[in-house]
Amino acid sequence: MKQSKLLKHPTIPFEIRENLTVAEALTAMSHTAFQARNLATAVDVWGAMLKGRTSIFLGLAGAMVPAGMRSVITYLIQNRMIDCLVSTGANLFHDIHESLGRFHFQGNAHMDDVLLQQEGVDRIYDVFASEPEFRRLDDYVSHFADTLDLDRPYTTREFLYLLGQRVSKEAESEGIVTAAYKAGVPIYCPAIGDSSIGIGLAARTQGKKFLFDIVADVQETALLSLKSKETGVIYIGGGTPKNFIQQMEVTASFWDPTVSGHEYALQITADAPHWGGLSGCTFEEAKSWGKIKKDARMVTVYCDSSIALPLIATAVVQRHKETITKRVHPNLLEMLAKNKIEGFKRA
Amino acid sequence: MKQSKLLKHPTIPFEIRENLTVAEALTAMSHTAFQARNLATAVDVWGAMLKGRTSIFLGLAGAMVPAGMRSVITYLIQNRMIDCLVSTGANLFHDIHESLGRFHFQGNAHMDDVLLQQEGVDRIYDVFASEPEFRRLDDYVSHFADTLDLDRPYTTREFLYLLGQRVSKEAESEGIVTAAYKAGVPIYCPAIGDSSIGIGLAARTQGKKFLFDIVADVQETALLSLKSKETGVIYIGGGTPKNFIQQMEVTASFWDPTVSGHEYALQITADAPHWGGLSGCTFEEAKSWGKIKKDARMVTVYCDSSIALPLIATAVVQRHKETITKRVHPNLLEMLAKNKIEGFKRA
Amino acid sequence: MKQSKLLKHPTIPFEIRENLTVAEALTAMSHTAFQARNLATAVDVWGAMLKGRTSIFLGLAGAMVPAGMRSVITYLIQNRMIDCLVSTGANLFHDIHESLGRFHFQGNAHMDDVLLQQEGVDRIYDVFASEPEFRRLDDYVSHFADTLDLDRPYTTREFLYLLGQRVSKEAESEGIVTAAYKAGVPIYCPAIGDSSIGIGLAARTQGKKFLFDIVADVQETALLSLKSKETGVIYIGGGTPKNFIQQMEVTASFWDPTVSGHEYALQITADAPHWGGLSGCTFEEAKSWGKIKKDARMVTVYCDSSIALPLIATAVVQRHKETITKRVHPNLLEMLAKNKIEGFKRA
Amino acid sequence: MKQSKLLKHPTIPFEIRENLTVAEALTAMSHTAFQARNLATAVDVWGAMLKGRTSIFLGLAGAMVPAGMRSVITYLIQNRMIDCLVSTGANLFHDIHESLGRFHFQGNAHMDDVLLQQEGVDRIYDVFASEPEFRRLDDYVSHFADTLDLDRPYTTREFLYLLGQRVSKEAESEGIVTAAYKAGVPIYCPAIGDSSIGIGLAARTQGKKFLFDIVADVQETALLSLKSKETGVIYIGGGTPKNFIQQMEVTASFWDPTVSGHEYALQITADAPHWGGLSGCTFEEAKSWGKIKKDARMVTVYCDSSIALPLIATAVVQRHKETITKRVHPNLLEMLAKNKIEGFKRA
Repeated sequence: MKQSKLLKHPTIPFEIRENLTVAEALTAMSHTAFQARNLATAVDVWGAMLKGRTSIFLGLAGAMVPAGMRSVITYLIQNRMIDCLVSTGANLFHDIHESLGRFHFQGNAHMDDVLLQQEGVDRIYDVFASEPEFRRLDDYVSHFADTLDLDRPYTTREFLYLLGQRVSKEAESEGIVTAAYKAGVPIYCPAIGDSSIGIGLAARTQGKKFLFDIVADVQETALLSLKSKETGVIYIGGGTPKNFIQQMEVTASFWDPTVSGHEYALQITADAPHWGGLSGCTFEEAKSWGKIKKDARMVTVYCDSSIALPLIATAVVQRHKETITKRVHPNLLEMLAKNKIEGFKRA
Repeated sequence: MKQSKLLKHPTIPFEIRENLTVAEALTAMSHTAFQARNLATAVDVWGAMLKGRTSIFLGLAGAMVPAGMRSVITYLIQNRMIDCLVSTGANLFHDIHESLGRFHFQGNAHMDDVLLQQEGVDRIYDVFASEPEFRRLDDYVSHFADTLDLDRPYTTREFLYLLGQRVSKEAESEGIVTAAYKAGVPIYCPAIGDSSIGIGLAARTQGKKFLFDIVADVQETALLSLKSKETGVIYIGGGTPKNFIQQMEVTASFWDPTVSGHEYALQITADAPHWGGLSGCTFEEAKSWGKIKKDARMVTVYCDSSIALPLIATAVVQRHKETITKRVHPNLLEMLAKNKIEGFKRA
Repeated sequence: MKQSKLLKHPTIPFEIRENLTVAEALTAMSHTAFQARNLATAVDVWGAMLKGRTSIFLGLAGAMVPAGMRSVITYLIQNRMIDCLVSTGANLFHDIHESLGRFHFQGNAHMDDVLLQQEGVDRIYDVFASEPEFRRLDDYVSHFADTLDLDRPYTTREFLYLLGQRVSKEAESEGIVTAAYKAGVPIYCPAIGDSSIGIGLAARTQGKKFLFDIVADVQETALLSLKSKETGVIYIGGGTPKNFIQQMEVTASFWDPTVSGHEYALQITADAPHWGGLSGCTFEEAKSWGKIKKDARMVTVYCDSSIALPLIATAVVQRHKETITKRVHPNLLEMLAKNKIEGFKRA
Repeated sequence: MKQSKLLKHPTIPFEIRENLTVAEALTAMSHTAFQARNLATAVDVWGAMLKGRTSIFLGLAGAMVPAGMRSVITYLIQNRMIDCLVSTGANLFHDIHESLGRFHFQGNAHMDDVLLQQEGVDRIYDVFASEPEFRRLDDYVSHFADTLDLDRPYTTREFLYLLGQRVSKEAESEGIVTAAYKAGVPIYCPAIGDSSIGIGLAARTQGKKFLFDIVADVQETALLSLKSKETGVIYIGGGTPKNFIQQMEVTASFWDPTVSGHEYALQITADAPHWGGLSGCTFEEAKSWGKIKKDARMVTVYCDSSIALPLIATAVVQRHKETITKRVHPNLLEMLAKNKIEGFKRA
């Protein structure tokens, strides 16, 4: 039997070397298999996104800020390795908590939770936080809303921009919301009510009500899809951020039927496809919906994001330094400013 | 060495019997271990919730309607085995799709997705659906919004109530949204923009804008917590429905610091705690936050919901028939009608 | 756009009914999706295996006996729903423990393990067992070995047959090892040293050594493959039992190159394919190796075995009663007796 | 409310830096949370093992060699970062395959497996291998057995030592089995029949039979436990290697009841505890059995081993260079040579 032509690229064993950098380690993994190979491929896919005029959307789920990922996301924003952030409310709340000089703490996943409750300590797996401090931030959000013009509704993007502006004035360190404000990177939060930001706003029962225009959020992201030359997506976990970025393509296709899905796609997940849920679903499945383009460059890394995200991001910086420096990034706020939703009609 | 007193209740092997009912099978499992034991315990916890004057909140995530769980949820509503539903938008959209006489189809998880896209077929793991039919429903939602008074915002609860009313008039079969409308069971959808309902509303670019009052959703559920004698939660998967029901207790505690967490808690999940995310987090962890009461009756079943939910629900019906029939269920809509949000103030 | 021909079989929602039997529930699930559908398909695949002259091999991993699955396996043997068992040593050890009138106990997965150790209690997730009792069984195995003719090595099959014979004489209840002895169902244990049986034998340091002929185990199962009309496999978990049954086909193909893989295949697993390991690998992958036949009837159920196994087995009994009763099962011990390993040569 | 004393060590966000080495990245992760923190802790635990006179046992499961981990394991052996290897047969078989100048290949997890079978290509998730080449190695093993003195049985350790000696003579590159032979690092393979090595030996149907003395394997490892000052364990995946190393302590305690479990423990797994199986079980659970010492230093990393192993090993080398260089490693072969099994008696 002749050797099959499918047997072409041998796996090359990973070699331990002193002074191996993260980028070198991931390059070595590109010749291996299983999730190590996918981890390495993620660096290539992200690198490719950075090369063209691709609008890059990052979907952020999971308690990534308490888990120490705040500076990584901040770096991505400041160095324009992403152009738009879609996040759970929790990550933004936790980010502001740290911007205002407070902390999350290393804890213990097996501590007695009734005791923690009595101590005013909230637990997120092996992270602890101060419940009284969180409540002060709920109040901060509540009072911030009082300062806004309450005669009109806000997209979550506008609200978070203004909140970023406010926090910037008193921040003790740069974080996600403040860096995004400064860099003109829009942040959307599709389930903002479902977070401590929502709690803070809900606690306001007196005075004028605060209204979000969440339908406009959907419209704006569809507009961004239409006006972008290409789109790339990076999902840290699943949840609403992933779905929200996926569905941009569907909404946009109502206005322009030639819209055909994101061109680049990278996801890090600890979920699995066989449960049938959104968080674990594959990019292949997304192609059937037209959410991902049929010939998209894409990769899924099955790994805890706290491990995979900093490694991939560090390796992208190390390997694609010049591309990042020279990148002429799409200006999404300008796209939003120049186009009116009313200009779009059902095709 | 004397036998430890911890060795008290022997596991009793599951015995195969002809004509074993689901309830009998789960009772047999209550004497076993691992997830079979938890599956059985779930029947007890739900049964206990049904006995008192507990307001029961069901959080529904994952594509449960395409997976054939529509009638189970409908049954739970009609027979008042739950009192409030918090759902992803997708499940409600898919439910209306079926109510209007259309279908989801058995498919194949390994089909070529580019081919499916060309055929107008959307894939959800091993389920197929017609993209053109989904688009007709997007339009339906869009046109429904046109019929509403657009001078004021709507909670998702009101919107879904009115949508249920409308669908009821033309439904070919009873489903979740229509049954909830008829039974006075409120439905909340914390990330409604992040679904085909959101897409349908976003496609409307002409005429008056449709506004959701999502902060009021948060306030209403906190009010329901305060006015309920006790609360019980059932989570099918994680995501926003789980978080939204968890955070009720935190919001409510701003108004009344004696609020101390849900008294009963049951979750079915295929996620794991060690990734640190909300979907996989334990009820123990929730106790540290005061979201679950310190002595709550609670159980987590690690299992695909498509297996666990129908089995648990069927066994509850078989085992707790009389309790269900005689149950004087809390009237949540009445609680909402009788109390004004403005009546609540920061404690 | 015309409706795709792929949209043919609508999912039919699962309907809760009082007195629903397990078989009826699983039939209802056959019209649903995700793992519920696979659970139902498993009943069909097993039913199909029972119809022909298929030799059915059950691979048993995981602490299934402590988890209350002892009677299910015993039933399968007694009613000849399987023809050969390949097991971890632990399950056989735990089975004999119960046959001799001792127990496993319902415990608590979150107990202090240092305390348990002091109490002489071994923990298997939420099951407790008595360490002193286990040690008595280690001794039992040790002394049993003393009674054997130690001038020759034993296959694990012979050893377990003789052990079954011995335990039968003093058993307080029928179990796996005793039922297999009586029914003439061979049991193989490919990693028998790696279990308390191995510990028991290793503790014997005086007198003649006990020798297993594990290579003959491999040869015998390959012979069974060659002499069986068809083969079907059922894997409860992964590990050595799964691999051992898979590799039968490879070994057999050395002697007869026309051997082409098992004709029926059913597995229950909580593992996932993307980690690249044996326990989570798909039957598709096994086809590349020739371990599973290219047109095999097969199904994978992603579920805890403590839930899926008793449900599937009960439904098979309920749905395929007559097939089971009338089944003329292959006699594997006779195949082994009639054929000599020496008769097989490299093709 | 005063800030709880439990809130002591803030998480410190991971900072992306150019030229960050793997060790620096993992040190940065030690201040974060979730699995990133565990990944970092693993470096500390391994470092601590290397400092004393601890005998380090590595359990190796999963297709680690096809996945490109051969050189990592070889490095660990050559630099005496481990003292004993317990492996599945597959990894050893795959290692010899590469030592003899053949390859594994990067493949595709979604390829048509029937086509692969026709092409003579075996698939392991996303790795391809040549079936004809594997069969040549089956023959190699078979013929190697012919060269041995077949009048006596062999422990798997002896067999693999002799096989390492033989392969060394014709190896084109250094690998696990050859390096272990040269370094005097014993290799045990508790389920050797259940692998291609077993297949190769089983295909020999003529001439004297080859016999393994697997009970002696169990005895030897117990002896190593008794004669070691301290023991440390590293589990890459679960399966028989993990169980085999765990049970050493139980067997040893029959001869010396003061044996109290391994002092250091590190595991990398993609499994979860809640399924009740061995591969996912915690070290806490192992304490109840006395397999892990009550005050052991231990860590579990939930991650694909193809990612976690090379990163941890590289970081250990970078961080603990001097400790490794100066380490006076325990000589396990000498322990075996100096002590007779017959010298041990039931306590």
